[in-house]
Amino acid sequence: MGQQEKIPVGIVGASGYGGVQLVRLLLDHPLLELVYLGGEGSAGRRYAELYPHFYGSLDLIIEPVDLEVIGDRCQVVFLALPNGLAADMAPTLIHKGCKVLDLSADYRFEDLQTYQLWYGKTREDRELAATAVYGLPEIYRDRIAQSQLVGCAGCYPTASLLALSPLLKQGLIVPETAIIDAKSGTSGGGRQGKINLLLAEADGSLGAYNVGRHRHTPEIEQVCSDLAGHEVLIQFTPHLIPMPRGILATVYATMRDPGLVRDDLLTIYKAFYRSCPWVRILPSGVYPQTKWACGTNLCYIGIEVDERTGRVIVISAIDNLLKGQSGQAVQCLNIMMGWSETLGLPELAFYP
Amino acid sequence: MGQQEKIPVGIVGASGYGGVQLVRLLLDHPLLELVYLGGEGSAGRRYAELYPHFYGSLDLIIEPVDLEVIGDRCQVVFLALPNGLAADMAPTLIHKGCKVLDLSADYRFEDLQTYQLWYGKTREDRELAATAVYGLPEIYRDRIAQSQLVGCAGCYPTASLLALSPLLKQGLIVPETAIIDAKSGTSGGGRQGKINLLLAEADGSLGAYNVGRHRHTPEIEQVCSDLAGHEVLIQFTPHLIPMPRGILATVYATMRDPGLVRDDLLTIYKAFYRSCPWVRILPSGVYPQTKWACGTNLCYIGIEVDERTGRVIVISAIDNLLKGQSGQAVQCLNIMMGWSETLGLPELAFYP
Amino acid sequence: MGQQEKIPVGIVGASGYGGVQLVRLLLDHPLLELVYLGGEGSAGRRYAELYPHFYGSLDLIIEPVDLEVIGDRCQVVFLALPNGLAADMAPTLIHKGCKVLDLSADYRFEDLQTYQLWYGKTREDRELAATAVYGLPEIYRDRIAQSQLVGCAGCYPTASLLALSPLLKQGLIVPETAIIDAKSGTSGGGRQGKINLLLAEADGSLGAYNVGRHRHTPEIEQVCSDLAGHEVLIQFTPHLIPMPRGILATVYATMRDPGLVRDDLLTIYKAFYRSCPWVRILPSGVYPQTKWACGTNLCYIGIEVDERTGRVIVISAIDNLLKGQSGQAVQCLNIMMGWSETLGLPELAFYP
Amino acid sequence: MGQQEKIPVGIVGASGYGGVQLVRLLLDHPLLELVYLGGEGSAGRRYAELYPHFYGSLDLIIEPVDLEVIGDRCQVVFLALPNGLAADMAPTLIHKGCKVLDLSADYRFEDLQTYQLWYGKTREDRELAATAVYGLPEIYRDRIAQSQLVGCAGCYPTASLLALSPLLKQGLIVPETAIIDAKSGTSGGGRQGKINLLLAEADGSLGAYNVGRHRHTPEIEQVCSDLAGHEVLIQFTPHLIPMPRGILATVYATMRDPGLVRDDLLTIYKAFYRSCPWVRILPSGVYPQTKWACGTNLCYIGIEVDERTGRVIVISAIDNLLKGQSGQAVQCLNIMMGWSETLGLPELAFYP
Repeated sequence: MGQQEKIPVGIVGASGYGGVQLVRLLLDHPLLELVYLGGEGSAGRRYAELYPHFYGSLDLIIEPVDLEVIGDRCQVVFLALPNGLAADMAPTLIHKGCKVLDLSADYRFEDLQTYQLWYGKTREDRELAATAVYGLPEIYRDRIAQSQLVGCAGCYPTASLLALSPLLKQGLIVPETAIIDAKSGTSGGGRQGKINLLLAEADGSLGAYNVGRHRHTPEIEQVCSDLAGHEVLIQFTPHLIPMPRGILATVYATMRDPGLVRDDLLTIYKAFYRSCPWVRILPSGVYPQTKWACGTNLCYIGIEVDERTGRVIVISAIDNLLKGQSGQAVQCLNIMMGWSETLGLPELAFYP
Repeated sequence: MGQQEKIPVGIVGASGYGGVQLVRLLLDHPLLELVYLGGEGSAGRRYAELYPHFYGSLDLIIEPVDLEVIGDRCQVVFLALPNGLAADMAPTLIHKGCKVLDLSADYRFEDLQTYQLWYGKTREDRELAATAVYGLPEIYRDRIAQSQLVGCAGCYPTASLLALSPLLKQGLIVPETAIIDAKSGTSGGGRQGKINLLLAEADGSLGAYNVGRHRHTPEIEQVCSDLAGHEVLIQFTPHLIPMPRGILATVYATMRDPGLVRDDLLTIYKAFYRSCPWVRILPSGVYPQTKWACGTNLCYIGIEVDERTGRVIVISAIDNLLKGQSGQAVQCLNIMMGWSETLGLPELAFYP
Repeated sequence: MGQQEKIPVGIVGASGYGGVQLVRLLLDHPLLELVYLGGEGSAGRRYAELYPHFYGSLDLIIEPVDLEVIGDRCQVVFLALPNGLAADMAPTLIHKGCKVLDLSADYRFEDLQTYQLWYGKTREDRELAATAVYGLPEIYRDRIAQSQLVGCAGCYPTASLLALSPLLKQGLIVPETAIIDAKSGTSGGGRQGKINLLLAEADGSLGAYNVGRHRHTPEIEQVCSDLAGHEVLIQFTPHLIPMPRGILATVYATMRDPGLVRDDLLTIYKAFYRSCPWVRILPSGVYPQTKWACGTNLCYIGIEVDERTGRVIVISAIDNLLKGQSGQAVQCLNIMMGWSETLGLPELAFYP
Repeated sequence: MGQQEKIPVGIVGASGYGGVQLVRLLLDHPLLELVYLGGEGSAGRRYAELYPHFYGSLDLIIEPVDLEVIGDRCQVVFLALPNGLAADMAPTLIHKGCKVLDLSADYRFEDLQTYQLWYGKTREDRELAATAVYGLPEIYRDRIAQSQLVGCAGCYPTASLLALSPLLKQGLIVPETAIIDAKSGTSGGGRQGKINLLLAEADGSLGAYNVGRHRHTPEIEQVCSDLAGHEVLIQFTPHLIPMPRGILATVYATMRDPGLVRDDLLTIYKAFYRSCPWVRILPSGVYPQTKWACGTNLCYIGIEVDERTGRVIVISAIDNLLKGQSGQAVQCLNIMMGWSETLGLPELAFYP
């Protein structure tokens, strides 16, 4: 493998948390070479000024965003920008022959109406958007392998859908009873100076937000509906947890067959994820801690059946910035390139 | 008030977190005087050796537990012990004329069968147990006022029941759809050297535990059944959050009348808690942070209706060691003594 | 005391962390009544919108800053503003007869040259500034009692000077060997959306900042020089700690007399602070934890002598927002009013 | 390299934090193969039961500690045990031809008198101990390369000595003025259920411990004396910080030549560490954050000169469990084997 030529890769929006994970991952990837870092506000600055732990490891300068230049230099481009910007860049990059992996919500929706309703931006790239694939490899691996443009799954949807998918796909639950109580570290809010994300405010505390109206809801529902074969509404509630990274999704649903026991479900989940190297089904009675997944691309899943209430409770844990964002993007790219989907991605946390 | 003689009070089990909250609260209470601190392992030691922030403020020595002595010296006794010990002490103390407030689970159950099933201890004090009142003043204030023995409500049940009670009492929800996703700081695990409660393990992480079988479940169900007028099963899942104190309960339930909107529920909740000085119903669109309640006896409640799914989502926040334990015990005692139930209890957090 | 009329008090700059502590403290103070909250950016908003834990406890609206109005309504005004603003307001308020307590650096310096050098603002209020007293009651109690205008001590200086003062005053150390290694929670950075204060960045991490050039240095040196009787240079290094509040100062100095042992120093410290209700000298071998002081106006001090090196090591802990800021301001006001200096101030933390 | 046969490696004491870092590192190392995990209390259990994030990645069972068996199966043995146990095992293992890397204090001291004085254990292995090399590669690389037995440097000594060594080696400071104010995450206390290490106690708080008598003092002094060429006493104070991992050492010393400026020192440090891939000297005005080093084997160093006081202040940051313990042990082994000292070790943190 050492002889193989490396693929030149660029990142637009390198200064945020999604960007810095990508930079970190790409420096370790054996077949990718980071050749371009783009940003508007930070153009001209050395990347290590923004993230000083890179001093001595990375000498790149952040460059202005010029799509022609990017398209010429890169075979692959990651877009790590606020929602609404990728839709203005992807068409040019795709036209120039790049593979594009978008970390925002712009290319996640089959129905742009839904996007426009929840994100409030009118879209001109209807044709291109129709070719985009939803970047959740455990569900859409084959389509990702064929695609040029991937709308990488959101962090909450990744944790939620990996917990829910086997249940919906196998018809084991009453879909409308599904409730997702999700908990995220504060890095999900991005590298922005928001008061509620200050350590002084968020540490030692916990709260819900956007109850009943978080934008990840329609994204979760789109995949759930696809798996269930009919339209499904999901209850989704996000909470902010006093920790930098990690997501835990606690998923509740009423089983169609109250006779199923925990071991049945463990068997079903293991079979469903048999070919998925990034999903770990935990043994009976073990539930995941988010820290196990931090710094890795893994999703840990624990399963419980409450025979008293007839519900299944599935608990999934991921690193919101890796499996929930940048790690998953690299996993998608590995698949698009025909490589092993584990290539260059970290598997084990440094615990504690 | 300054002229009124203070009531002598004792604490058995003063070395734990429940004990230290009581000590702190009693030192500020205008009508109570802490005269006895009891403990087995720590007897003979100065209390400030265990909790050095008391140096210069409290000179008491921890004494051995001798029920006769306690009964002679104290008019009121708080029992802050592991489950199963209060049942061996309360009879003697009650017999000696003390008012007893138990912080353990021993006197929370109307049906001792349920207690024995979930706690595994056979009970000999059936008669006395039948006189005990469940110590959740917002629901059972009148009975508490008449009682000699109070089994103070658990931390999770307090947060959960204050969120759920108006819905059940008014028949607004389908009871069996109620799901409580609860999150607690680690002090709930007590002052014991458990590996999973070490900062190195618990910080920066999050997980569920005792899924489908936490002992607070039957306690929640007992009150829910009482309010609903028939037996109710509740889904309850606790999570450990990387913070010292605080509980957030996120409660989901399907409304009987899908036409109810958020403002209707706010009105109903405000009416329900009209005479409850320790409950704050938040304005429309505001959800509580646990830190708001820390160091206070308050319960903050935020309410949301999801019109898409027909569910109500109620979120409550308390300090697990105050309103969830020792503060509530003092509130109960205030009621038993015929005093204002806010007497001597802290109302506002030091934020941030 | 219940009959005594309450003194009307105002806060200018109520929206920051200093402001919110003052609001919290004043609501509990038996002889003060909060009648005015002023702010520029937040004028017209209900205070509880900024800090929702006040819903149900405080109904005040933030008002624009009109010095004439403030002076008419308030007998006492707390200025809780960024450095440089108090100097423009205090003259008018003093002229109108108010007592003024400034929480910024504006009135801390005897020599305005020093202020101008470190803070970069030219001052027009030289005459008034000369009447201001440095608000550290343990050192300047008598002068505070006589003053109309107090420049309350900074947070780091408070912790540092309470640790150092007995040594300097008694001539026990070689002053120029004094090194203060100080550690602060992140609320010291104020309620501003700074990237480095985000939980995602600051949690699980630790670093020094402003090494050799923090603005609290000249303030510390001013008091040290006063106590030593000659000009003293001090080494001061602040660090940011992943916690919301609290300061620990670890102070090192070489003893003049290497024969002094720990117990000698404990005796000297206890004598020095004999009349200081807010200082606790810990027993031999006990060192303070910042959390013991959180939510209180106390300063805990632990003392060690290293006989191998001939150094004394003094460790002090305070709540940076109370004894280090707003609590101390109220303590100063108590003294200015001729009241007990403990009046209305919290003494014991809710631990853990 | 893929063709090279892997070296079989064992870990005795695999259940602690040192052990679990080694397991994690060895799974990624291209030339080492983990073949043995030993422990007393946990023998017979699957390793993933102790650390469930290994489910699906590691199937090893913990075995009893039988030195003959270990010596037969392993070419290299890491001892990750409490102080005092390695001295009873190393002789047999060395005799059987193993390379031994001890993570405890047993083989760190040239003078066993010092060890016995500070650790209170009488030693029978005087001859073997005399052959051990102190495992701090940046100072003793050549001797490590020749050794069979390495006493890996402690966590605090590593951070402290990397900050101090260039100053002492070049005679730039007055050695007896050196003061090390060190701050560590709580994992340094090990995987033991100690009350003061509970999240509920340690979170949101900060304190010093073992002031003037921490056992890492003589270890630091031994190397300082070696570098200075005469016996040196050092002031060392450790603090516990509310975070799982990381150490920051803030080192103060008076310069012999007050004319040296920051840039001079930066040049000297860069030259001193020219051939050290695991040390990063930060640019002028940049001070390290511990989180930059977490999950890596790097030591970041920032340097400041205070021209007012004539002192140099050097600040170093490491991951206490990697560069401060297990990572450094692997680095030492790489050197003993004649490999690149960066082999198989992580270089960049996942930030934030």
